[in-house]
Amino acid sequence: MSLLVVGSIAFDSVETPTDCRENVIGGSATYCSYAASYFTPVNLVGVVGEDWPAEHTALLASRNVNTDGLEVKAGEKTFSWKGKYLPNMNDRETLEVNLNVFETFSPILPESYKSTPFVFLANGAPTVQLQVLEQVENPKLVVADTMDLWINIQKEDLLTLIKRIDGLVLNDSEAKLLTGEENLVKAGQAVLDLGAKFCVLKKGEHGAMYFGEDGCYVLPAYPTEDVLDPTGAGDSFAGGMMGYLASQDATDPASIKRALVYGTLVASYNVEDFSLDRMQQIERDSLDQRFAQYQQMLSID
Amino acid sequence: MSLLVVGSIAFDSVETPTDCRENVIGGSATYCSYAASYFTPVNLVGVVGEDWPAEHTALLASRNVNTDGLEVKAGEKTFSWKGKYLPNMNDRETLEVNLNVFETFSPILPESYKSTPFVFLANGAPTVQLQVLEQVENPKLVVADTMDLWINIQKEDLLTLIKRIDGLVLNDSEAKLLTGEENLVKAGQAVLDLGAKFCVLKKGEHGAMYFGEDGCYVLPAYPTEDVLDPTGAGDSFAGGMMGYLASQDATDPASIKRALVYGTLVASYNVEDFSLDRMQQIERDSLDQRFAQYQQMLSID
Repeated sequence: MSLLVVGSIAFDSVETPTDCRENVIGGSATYCSYAASYFTPVNLVGVVGEDWPAEHTALLASRNVNTDGLEVKAGEKTFSWKGKYLPNMNDRETLEVNLNVFETFSPILPESYKSTPFVFLANGAPTVQLQVLEQVENPKLVVADTMDLWINIQKEDLLTLIKRIDGLVLNDSEAKLLTGEENLVKAGQAVLDLGAKFCVLKKGEHGAMYFGEDGCYVLPAYPTEDVLDPTGAGDSFAGGMMGYLASQDATDPASIKRALVYGTLVASYNVEDFSLDRMQQIERDSLDQRFAQYQQMLSID
Repeated sequence: MSLLVVGSIAFDSVETPTDCRENVIGGSATYCSYAASYFTPVNLVGVVGEDWPAEHTALLASRNVNTDGLEVKAGEKTFSWKGKYLPNMNDRETLEVNLNVFETFSPILPESYKSTPFVFLANGAPTVQLQVLEQVENPKLVVADTMDLWINIQKEDLLTLIKRIDGLVLNDSEAKLLTGEENLVKAGQAVLDLGAKFCVLKKGEHGAMYFGEDGCYVLPAYPTEDVLDPTGAGDSFAGGMMGYLASQDATDPASIKRALVYGTLVASYNVEDFSLDRMQQIERDSLDQRFAQYQQMLSID
C-alpha cells in the first residue's frame, strides 16, 4: 500500500560542536518520505520555491517517492531553517527561520493521491493538517505529528484534529505541554483521552513510548556511537514506522510494534550523518540486520 | 550466596511537588540491602548515631539483612539529607546535608563477613571503598557505585578503585563527567577503558545501559505512572541487580542481563512511595510478575 506524506520541505543549515552544513536538503516531509521509501511507495505533498534544485527532487523520485504533489512556486524561495546543537547533541537552538513559501502552504492533493490508504501528516499547522484530511477518501490509517508551536497558538484546531486521526506522534516535552501531565505515562494516557486511538511519545536518544487500547510499552533507542546530526530523527522515525505499516497493509498492535522498531532503526541510521547522507548509503537489508540485533538486545532469557 | 553491602545509612527528608516526609529511613546501603533481600541474604556494613531507632534496624533484620556490621556510635548523630524534587520528578536540589557519623566512616568488616562472595560498594568515598576491598577475601564479584562528588574530589582514588573491581554502576551524567564523553555509548566504552570489566549507566526514568566485553545494550525503565518519590531508585536498582546475581551465584552475561531487569523492577516499585514504604508491601512474587510483563513489553514478534 502507498503512504501519503504531507509536510515541510526545507533547506537546513546545521551546526554541531564538530562540524556544519549549509543549505542541505531537509524538512519533515523530506526525511519522512525518504525513510518510508525503504518500505513502500510514497506520495509526497509539499511546496518549494524556484531555488529548489532539480537534483533534490530527482533524489526523492529515484527512491519510491512520487513528487507529483510537490508544488514549485515561481519567483519565491524555499522554507529555510538554521540551527545549532549543544554539546549533548540533543538540545538545539534555532538560529534562523525563513518560512518563505511554507508560510502560505495550502496543500491541494493531486486526484491520484486522494485514495492513498495510509496517511502521515508531518509537523505543520493543525489547520493545514485538517485541510488535508478533508481531501483524503476513506484512509485506513491517519497519523499526525505536531510541535510546541501549534500547542501554543492553535490548540483548539489541534484538539479537533486529534479527535479525527488514529495516531498522534509527538515529543515527550510536547506531550507534557499538551496535557499538563509531567509523568510521561500519564501524559500518554491523557493524549488517548483527547481522542487519539494511539499515541507515540518520542524521547530522542531515550527511545519511544507507545500508548493504545492494548496497553503501554517503551522501546529504547538503538545505541548509536556516532551521532553526527540529530536533525530529522523524529521525522525519519515516523517515516519508517508509517512506511512499514503501509507496506504490510496492517494496523494491528503487533504490526505497530514492529513499525516502531523500524522507525527507531531508520532514525538510528539517520543521525549518523548530516541531512539524508547516511540514509542514502543504506538499503532495506541494513534495517533488517539492525532489526535482528535490536531484537536480540531486548530479548531476556 | 550472600551479598556484602557497604554504604550510607541516613535519615532522609524529602519534598516532592505534592507531598513530603521528614526523617524517614534512607541511605544508599539501606535501599540497596532492602532491595537485595528479595533475592539473597545480605551482610550490611554501615554506621549510625545513637538517634537511630531500634525499629529501623529491626526492619532490616526482619528481612534477610544481617546487621552485625552496623556500627552505632554513642553520643553522635546519624547522617541526614534533605532534598526537594522539581515538578519533573527527576531533577532535585539538595537542601541540607549533615554528614555526622558518616564523615569519619571507616568500615571494619566483622570476621564473618570477610568471605562474602558478592560485594557491592554503594556510593561513598573511593578511599573508603578501597579500604573495604582490602578486607574481603577472594570475592567472586565486586561492583561499586560512585557519584559526581568523588569524580571531582577523589578522582585518582576512584581510578585506582575502577581497576580493582569488576563492575561500575553510575548515572549517565556522572559517566560523562568521569570520561569527558558526551555520547553515552562512548562514555560507557570509556569506563571499560579505565579498567572496569563491565559498566552500567543509570538513566533514571529512561532506564539503564550495559557495557561489557560481550557488547552493549539498553533496557528501558518499567513505565510507572505513580512516581511519588524517586529517592533510592539507583540504590534499589543496584540492590536488586546484585541480590539476584548473588542468589544465582552467577556472573555470566545472561545472568547479568536478568539481574539488570530485576534491578529495574525493584526500582520501579521503590519509586511508587516514599522511603522503603512501597518495597515493604511487595514480595519476590510481585517482582516475578512484573518481570513477565517487562519481558512481554520488550518482545518483538
